[in-house]
Amino acid sequence: MSARVPPQKKNRRIRAGETTLRTLGEFGLLRRLRGRTPLLPPDVLLGMGDDASIMQPSPGLALVATVDVLVEGKDFRWQWCPPEAVGHKGLTVSLSDVGAMGAVPKYALVALGLPRGMPLHRVDGLYRGIWETAQAAGVAVVGGDLSEAPCLILSLTLIGEGEAGRLVRRNGSKPGETIWVTGPLGRAAAGLHALKAGYRVEHSSVRGKRGTKISPKTRKAIRETIQAQLYPVARYREGRVLAETGFATAMIDLSDGLASDLSRLAEESGVGARIFADQIPVDPFTRQVARLLGLDPLKLALGGGEDFELLFTSRDDPAAIEETLVQSGFARPHPIGEVRPSDEGLSLVGLRGRREPIRGGFEHFR
Amino acid sequence: MSARVPPQKKNRRIRAGETTLRTLGEFGLLRRLRGRTPLLPPDVLLGMGDDASIMQPSPGLALVATVDVLVEGKDFRWQWCPPEAVGHKGLTVSLSDVGAMGAVPKYALVALGLPRGMPLHRVDGLYRGIWETAQAAGVAVVGGDLSEAPCLILSLTLIGEGEAGRLVRRNGSKPGETIWVTGPLGRAAAGLHALKAGYRVEHSSVRGKRGTKISPKTRKAIRETIQAQLYPVARYREGRVLAETGFATAMIDLSDGLASDLSRLAEESGVGARIFADQIPVDPFTRQVARLLGLDPLKLALGGGEDFELLFTSRDDPAAIEETLVQSGFARPHPIGEVRPSDEGLSLVGLRGRREPIRGGFEHFR
Repeated sequence: MSARVPPQKKNRRIRAGETTLRTLGEFGLLRRLRGRTPLLPPDVLLGMGDDASIMQPSPGLALVATVDVLVEGKDFRWQWCPPEAVGHKGLTVSLSDVGAMGAVPKYALVALGLPRGMPLHRVDGLYRGIWETAQAAGVAVVGGDLSEAPCLILSLTLIGEGEAGRLVRRNGSKPGETIWVTGPLGRAAAGLHALKAGYRVEHSSVRGKRGTKISPKTRKAIRETIQAQLYPVARYREGRVLAETGFATAMIDLSDGLASDLSRLAEESGVGARIFADQIPVDPFTRQVARLLGLDPLKLALGGGEDFELLFTSRDDPAAIEETLVQSGFARPHPIGEVRPSDEGLSLVGLRGRREPIRGGFEHFR
Repeated sequence: MSARVPPQKKNRRIRAGETTLRTLGEFGLLRRLRGRTPLLPPDVLLGMGDDASIMQPSPGLALVATVDVLVEGKDFRWQWCPPEAVGHKGLTVSLSDVGAMGAVPKYALVALGLPRGMPLHRVDGLYRGIWETAQAAGVAVVGGDLSEAPCLILSLTLIGEGEAGRLVRRNGSKPGETIWVTGPLGRAAAGLHALKAGYRVEHSSVRGKRGTKISPKTRKAIRETIQAQLYPVARYREGRVLAETGFATAMIDLSDGLASDLSRLAEESGVGARIFADQIPVDPFTRQVARLLGLDPLKLALGGGEDFELLFTSRDDPAAIEETLVQSGFARPHPIGEVRPSDEGLSLVGLRGRREPIRGGFEHFR
């Protein structure tokens, strides 16, 4: 998980008389959640409320499993992140990981660390965000754990399924293959910068700093980039198609930024890579917001994370790949470069044709 | 999870020049962990280092899954808890849950929130504790996530397997059945009280408050109860036998205390229960420490948690149950009461034959 947000200031805005976790207690909250859990599919034999959940997996398929953690003040700020968005993003990060294997997401477990003074509407919103995103993805939330913690910590485990022989790893790239991304990059990073600069989207209207004049075009760009930051979309359906068709030889989701995630894929595959600045898809919304805030849009695409597009390599005919994805109802993918021998390392060919080495992106604990 | 430990004081004792996470960074830590991960069994097709792990589950079996969270200052204190014990306990809590279903534990995912100034030896010790306990249980640690957090938070997901028709839930108890526990209760709670009172076990010697004289017998009792608190044993092997034989009609692990966990099992089964004070197994070590600290041993057994013994109900011949468990190499189980109709509620028959209602145990956020 990416984390670009500095520690949060205390501004919880708890209204007087508001119900908090302290009022309800753990068992009260558990009862409340069980009463609201969406109906479970027939392959879930037992959902929350026991020592563990029971699922009947599809015969013959392999399991995939991933876990991701979101931490308040690190990965999001209440100040600009509605509780629904936190829940949505927590699941999206994992959906994106399962999608990058080409697997079908199936079962989620939600572990929460919560401060005892947390207002109940936040917990409700958080679960609403998880449940809605889960239902849209055909994922059953089968269990979880509640614990007290100094700040909100969401740990989301996602189990998926796929044919063992078709799942796509990071280590299958070979020199000569084309490097692709499934969609535009830098949008979520532009949205984060807009939020940090004080812009907000409220009831679909955009609010800027007092006295700032924003053109309708900029307003739309701000709205779209903030939306991409708060409600990112995981490309697990695209990932499934890329795995089933055998197009992808290696795949990774873009959670930490193109530079960082490309270098991981290259490292696992034992290859180098060359990407071209003029082929990296940066959409007009991102450019607009970058201009407004005085940022370099290419840097947002390379270093910013949380776009959750898929990065994959393929030796197949570009036209066939594009056609298959577009005919499946997905966006047109973008070829951005070429897999190279490992001794060439990772490089970016700039707009003036100069080749520069690529440096890594975000890293925790630094 | 139980949490009886008040917030921790700042006493991290970081030695000068010691390596912390800040020095190593996320990727350095990941490389270090990957290099040390124990060998994976053949059913794990892909371990950590990709977007998700891949496992080939046993044909025909159902999956069980559980997640549990440990929070520094809530569930343990560095002051008296070696990092190995934190890792061990994190996995034990989940092993105990999977065991209480009668399933075989298989795959673990480790999500960690860590403060960036945390000394590396703690992270190493934590993983050592997880890996050792995992190997002893035949569990493969297949993946995880690292994130920065204000204190250590360990979220452990465990996936297990079992025959769908043989897994034991909480809701199968019927009036007239016998209530059993697999071993002595209150020991872990006695150990926690001993730690809070300042007793420590170091290199198998027991250290008390300065100037206190401790008899060898008390010393041994302190050591055994502190051991039970820091290195609890999950009864997943016993749970498996109780499920395979069909002895257990309902089962739960004792993580929050007998009173609390019995009331959950009774609620799920829609029954009442009557247990007898003189049948609740409290061992001499627990009694000894209770006497030393002026505590009621029966209260420790009823209200203290983290013993991780199994509580189950059965309609089968007590002699057959005892013989089967003992012949499998396990401790002799203890019948402690009887399942009653739901309108009778939950009660404890005291040493003088008086029947009293049972109140709940530990609850988060209160």
